Amino acid sequence: MLNDDNWFTEVYPKHGSALSIEIKAKLHEEQTAFQKIEIYDTEWFGKLMVIDGCTMVTDRDNFLYHEMMTHPVLYTHPNPKTVWIIGGGDCGSLKEVLKHPEVESAVQIEIDEGVTRLAEQYFPELCSSNRDPRAQLLFIDGIQWVKDAADASVDIIIVDSTDPVGPAEGLFNQAFYQQCLRCLRPDGILVQQSESPLFHMDLIESMHQTMKSAGFTSTRTLFFPQFIYPSGWWSGTMAGKGDLTHFREQAAQNKPFASRYYNAEIHRAAFVAPQFFREALP
Amino acid sequence: MLNDDNWFTEVYPKHGSALSIEIKAKLHEEQTAFQKIEIYDTEWFGKLMVIDGCTMVTDRDNFLYHEMMTHPVLYTHPNPKTVWIIGGGDCGSLKEVLKHPEVESAVQIEIDEGVTRLAEQYFPELCSSNRDPRAQLLFIDGIQWVKDAADASVDIIIVDSTDPVGPAEGLFNQAFYQQCLRCLRPDGILVQQSESPLFHMDLIESMHQTMKSAGFTSTRTLFFPQFIYPSGWWSGTMAGKGDLTHFREQAAQNKPFASRYYNAEIHRAAFVAPQFFREALP
Repeated sequence: MLNDDNWFTEVYPKHGSALSIEIKAKLHEEQTAFQKIEIYDTEWFGKLMVIDGCTMVTDRDNFLYHEMMTHPVLYTHPNPKTVWIIGGGDCGSLKEVLKHPEVESAVQIEIDEGVTRLAEQYFPELCSSNRDPRAQLLFIDGIQWVKDAADASVDIIIVDSTDPVGPAEGLFNQAFYQQCLRCLRPDGILVQQSESPLFHMDLIESMHQTMKSAGFTSTRTLFFPQFIYPSGWWSGTMAGKGDLTHFREQAAQNKPFASRYYNAEIHRAAFVAPQFFREALP
Repeated sequence: MLNDDNWFTEVYPKHGSALSIEIKAKLHEEQTAFQKIEIYDTEWFGKLMVIDGCTMVTDRDNFLYHEMMTHPVLYTHPNPKTVWIIGGGDCGSLKEVLKHPEVESAVQIEIDEGVTRLAEQYFPELCSSNRDPRAQLLFIDGIQWVKDAADASVDIIIVDSTDPVGPAEGLFNQAFYQQCLRCLRPDGILVQQSESPLFHMDLIESMHQTMKSAGFTSTRTLFFPQFIYPSGWWSGTMAGKGDLTHFREQAAQNKPFASRYYNAEIHRAAFVAPQFFREALP
């Protein structure tokens, strides 16, 4: 049944499991210079974007990832005026960032313009802030962008990338983190999607160590559900130079925008580490 | 690939999705008087138990469900001495309950003895407390057990059942909740697995309403990840007559047993409702 044309299946070969999404139709398939992108219409999840065989975004549940990759870091920073999004070509993170009125400039640096063009066509809701005058969409290599940028030129860097293989591999190493640290202003924070606590603890542990080796003094992981990503349980990891445990709680409680998952209490709760995680990363 | 003998697949037909677990071998298959039980050896999840086509327990990730269905309710109750587990035939909840030294008696009321016999054989770790002198294993109808029990005879009732269809259907209605309320002592708490916040909000809302209609004055849902259950995000819902927001935090912080997911901070965090949930159940 799951082999026929009605299902898209992603196998997690190292973890002996697979997720399948029931589809109505394949709407588009394209090999860009960087990756293969597919767009499906699904039975329950709305539109689905797949990159190199991995489910990336659905209408139904993208709010979890996009809210949790943006609002926690934005309310942790005392005064976020400039934000870079490395990757994030579907524009969902950009849209959430621009909900914060204190943000004066948000630059999305996506290597593959194809992702954004298809998002504009098939996920118009995610792209609804692309014409905000504070937004800038660049289609260049994020690693090179960070290398070329001036010291202390940004408040928040959000690394909203695919898995640490292929185009995104260079976003998970010490050289990249050092460049990020150099570009961040004194209160600056880096946040990066950091895979599954159930499947990828080795990666998360390594990220914390590598961020520390690069010169960040504080690191902190937050947790949230995300059905279409491996294991259904996902994380983001923040790195900064100061305290990351406090956040602008009052502002979060009075946030001037709607959300579906995030709120001030979820902010606090999302950073609480399960016991096995606390023991692995004391 | 996922149709061949190397995969067990559970389809979530209403939610256009499916989960597959890669298997090494089918170890057992049995039709009991109540349901069909299958046991598999898997590539990454250890042993897997399937009931009527639904994945129930794996070695790898059962700790999430069993810890979160027990420790939060036990540390919320001021002095839990007697506990009933309705269902829970794999004995994993029983094992967690018996980690609490203040518990004097824990009765597991599982309708299908086949579940427990197979758990003893294939999941010996979950059954490691079955011979605890405080434990009693009954293989009778949990609905009838509650009906027949004396008023004010138990501190905590844990409903650790399959989905609200088939044998478990009668565990999700007002008549059952009224009987539970009658059996609970003044500080008593009922906790019941309440499906997925992403897939089953209608059920969760209805459970809160039905518990209130039955006479419970407080209800509260807790959230946790559980990959092998539909959507990878699961919940339990507590009902009581008093305040359910406080818990024995000091005791939880000094708990005299090991855990892998639960700790006192996770306790607090697990009860924090996502924004959409808070708006649906203010």
